[in-house]
Amino acid sequence: MKNDSEIPEDSLYGLLKEYSDSDYYPFHMPGHKRQVKDDFLREFDNPFAIDITEIEGFDNLHHPQGILKRSMETAARIYHSDKTYYLVNGSSCGILSAVCAVTKPGGHLLMARNCHKSAYHAVILNQLKPEYIYPQIIGKLGIQGGISAETVDKSLNEHPGCEAVLVVSPTYDGVVSDIAAIAKVVHRHGLPLIVDEAHGAHFPFMDDENCQNCRPALECGADIVVQSLHKTLPSLTQTSVLHVKEGRVNIARLERYLQIFQSSSPSYVFMAAMERCIREMQANGRVRMRRHMERIRKMRQRLAGLCALRLLDRESAGNSGAAVYDIDETKLVISTRGCRNIRERQNTQGIETIQEFQNTEEACRTRRSGELVTGTWLEQVLRQEYHLEMEMAGTDYVVAITTCFDTQEGLDRLTDALLQIDSRLTREEEERKEGTNEGADISPDVCMTPVAAMDEEAEILDIADCAGRVSAEFVYVYPPGIPILVPGERISGKIIRRIASAGQQGLSVQGLEDPQAKRLRVTAEMMSEKIRE
Amino acid sequence: MKNDSEIPEDSLYGLLKEYSDSDYYPFHMPGHKRQVKDDFLREFDNPFAIDITEIEGFDNLHHPQGILKRSMETAARIYHSDKTYYLVNGSSCGILSAVCAVTKPGGHLLMARNCHKSAYHAVILNQLKPEYIYPQIIGKLGIQGGISAETVDKSLNEHPGCEAVLVVSPTYDGVVSDIAAIAKVVHRHGLPLIVDEAHGAHFPFMDDENCQNCRPALECGADIVVQSLHKTLPSLTQTSVLHVKEGRVNIARLERYLQIFQSSSPSYVFMAAMERCIREMQANGRVRMRRHMERIRKMRQRLAGLCALRLLDRESAGNSGAAVYDIDETKLVISTRGCRNIRERQNTQGIETIQEFQNTEEACRTRRSGELVTGTWLEQVLRQEYHLEMEMAGTDYVVAITTCFDTQEGLDRLTDALLQIDSRLTREEEERKEGTNEGADISPDVCMTPVAAMDEEAEILDIADCAGRVSAEFVYVYPPGIPILVPGERISGKIIRRIASAGQQGLSVQGLEDPQAKRLRVTAEMMSEKIRE
Repeated sequence: MKNDSEIPEDSLYGLLKEYSDSDYYPFHMPGHKRQVKDDFLREFDNPFAIDITEIEGFDNLHHPQGILKRSMETAARIYHSDKTYYLVNGSSCGILSAVCAVTKPGGHLLMARNCHKSAYHAVILNQLKPEYIYPQIIGKLGIQGGISAETVDKSLNEHPGCEAVLVVSPTYDGVVSDIAAIAKVVHRHGLPLIVDEAHGAHFPFMDDENCQNCRPALECGADIVVQSLHKTLPSLTQTSVLHVKEGRVNIARLERYLQIFQSSSPSYVFMAAMERCIREMQANGRVRMRRHMERIRKMRQRLAGLCALRLLDRESAGNSGAAVYDIDETKLVISTRGCRNIRERQNTQGIETIQEFQNTEEACRTRRSGELVTGTWLEQVLRQEYHLEMEMAGTDYVVAITTCFDTQEGLDRLTDALLQIDSRLTREEEERKEGTNEGADISPDVCMTPVAAMDEEAEILDIADCAGRVSAEFVYVYPPGIPILVPGERISGKIIRRIASAGQQGLSVQGLEDPQAKRLRVTAEMMSEKIRE
Repeated sequence: MKNDSEIPEDSLYGLLKEYSDSDYYPFHMPGHKRQVKDDFLREFDNPFAIDITEIEGFDNLHHPQGILKRSMETAARIYHSDKTYYLVNGSSCGILSAVCAVTKPGGHLLMARNCHKSAYHAVILNQLKPEYIYPQIIGKLGIQGGISAETVDKSLNEHPGCEAVLVVSPTYDGVVSDIAAIAKVVHRHGLPLIVDEAHGAHFPFMDDENCQNCRPALECGADIVVQSLHKTLPSLTQTSVLHVKEGRVNIARLERYLQIFQSSSPSYVFMAAMERCIREMQANGRVRMRRHMERIRKMRQRLAGLCALRLLDRESAGNSGAAVYDIDETKLVISTRGCRNIRERQNTQGIETIQEFQNTEEACRTRRSGELVTGTWLEQVLRQEYHLEMEMAGTDYVVAITTCFDTQEGLDRLTDALLQIDSRLTREEEERKEGTNEGADISPDVCMTPVAAMDEEAEILDIADCAGRVSAEFVYVYPPGIPILVPGERISGKIIRRIASAGQQGLSVQGLEDPQAKRLRVTAEMMSEKIRE
């Protein structure tokens, strides 16, 4: 430390401040939307003023006996759980703890293939052999749908060694599975059900009318539920809660893992933010949510006028036949599938003229098609032209997260922007068939358990040369962080094309050996046999 | 969620604000000491204003390619590491990642017995068989001393299967081991050395003169070093860094575990706080530390006048003969060993009179002895009478953490208080022999690996009936969170007396089956054989 190293001029803090002061509007997490003019957020202090450690009177998160115990007991009463735990390491640590608590090392877990990577991390840590349930597909939009209770039942019959079931609902895209039906099946098999409800922390604060399709998983019978407070509620990023119902879960074991996966110096700023968030939602959340749902319905009514872009709604979600899921309408999933830029006309007539007959059937028919547009394209136009930042872009859709902390002005800006952009697009009637959506229609062969494949001798190959080989690593498109490939899975030509195409579209492909997404770690041996039963 | 549950009046946030506004002065973590009047802290914004997620331009902690990559590279240059990682889940996740990265599941680890519980958690997760090195004892004060390179060498010869070595330096009490000597030994055996330097994040910012006894572990040759930024530097609680030197560590494997043990929604508030902290220390830290060390020396000079209480200093630390360790003078370890309240005299003369001949040899000799006082007693007097909050109280000492963010007024208040309290005490010449210090002189037999014992069939017994049985759980006194008992260790009568005595003294005994520290989980079978080689 003798020589002064050069410190660059740019700083993360400075950049965050700059972004905070800009006119960019967030349709992404965290749920508080940085609305520091809202009384509830404004009064929050400089975090350094209230940042302490476990001193007298302030209890200990890992062995609560005082104010934190009372605080979490109050939360449990609010959520109708048997126990609720504050998590300072996000929902990730909740999923790790839940899975490790209900499985033996080397055991079996039935899990939805569209689980978050933290679920796969638990599989690795506990050396589990996962069995997968694949979600249905919302055909028209190429988005992953729900998990059906029937599929769960079938899988549990096929794999009687499973010790627990893990599903995610709502998904990153807002698809809600029928947890009540799934819980019944899982309990009939005598197993605990874990629901990753990270994206549904607002569900408990929706009233009856809005709640039909968004019933909290705990109320539906799940045994362990993990919710990210920060994703859709006014809490700080990285704060979550875990709820448990007694009976099918060994609480002592669960608590052991909660201690392991969380810092022994948990942040009091986080804990205070969590308590405030939950109490605010209990006091005013239903009113806030009711008002928000009214705004969302009006917004969706206006967006019904989209000609080319399509908004995922309860109807289109149910269009795939035997759909057993619903959607959370606060999430806006806007599909660009089959959309093309209008050729020439835009240049000769200009935006204004086009807007005149926007929303008419005539307009939709008379547009001429140009280049296919992607989710990334839409995300960039929204960002660059409208200063609206989306939560994510997939191959052919974007996701906007709305919460009860959004402003009417923000919602209007997005509605106006989408209608304007839509007027520059046309849509082909035929759907693209190839599965370019988030891995929904790809189910790779499983050759080894994830942990075995990761620890196997490996080599690094150009991705083009990987066909037929077994992956030694995860490949994700992030967000949403759901793996396209899990270690131990065989790499097909289809998967290679998907990874390459995601890379070309500028999506963030992670887990590969190089940031250019060109090389992949595979096991040295060519595995020819499947180990699945 | 239909019925409004009752929300209690008291709130964690309210209590934190109240404490923040009170005149209680913190001699505990975090290192920023809530000095929000300091320019550096004052300008930090409402955390909600800068709390975002991984959007365009803000990179991704788990796959950094932009501003976070540059930020961590700058940190690496500042620390002279090959790579430095920001940790949002405290040093705990750094230790978990480091240990899992350098050991195979089921492998062997040589570790200091006074490691933090996160090290034991890593042992459990990776199903390791730990071999322990016991620290030396600072006899006079009953405090754990350092780890000697000689002991490490001997242990590695005895246990050639060990894959890595983990030591903690400085300890919670500020004892610094000779890491350079230990690193040489460990490297001679061809292994990587991990140093838990959680309590020494300020070491890299001490200049030559102050640095002799506080050389950063990385500079001394350690391969992985974990530092808590929040403990002694001006960062937020739960923020840490991990430094690595290439060569003996598989970086890809380390990064895999860093992803697993940290939230996939890491807090930008934390990351911004870490970057600011490191850059502030790089820019002004040496000046701040130099000024602080001058204040500490003056403070220690005044405290040399203590008659009954004893302050751990470099001299008393070295008094135990072949001491191979030093101390970090910013930590104030004040021993109450052998101290008694003065009987009667205090009542008849009053504090003022006693203060007159305070600090004279005469005064020290003429005091009459009353009840033995404990660390807890001293902590309570400092809290209740002086509004000074210590970091921890052990059986017969307290620890005060000072940092370069302390005010002169705060340091004076503690010095004055200690001198005043000292004038009410007398000290017996003979030392108590029984090992009432923090487990230093107890080395229980190891009968099973920790993970095996935890998963074993167990029963719960009154602690008095546990002699000879094998523990199925950890027992800690917290702080410092160093286990008295690890699962798989045999419970001796001495250990039972220690646990009981810690409970009676009001220390927080954790890990037992009940908060009253009366019942303990033991394995159902009476293990009669040791499994150690």
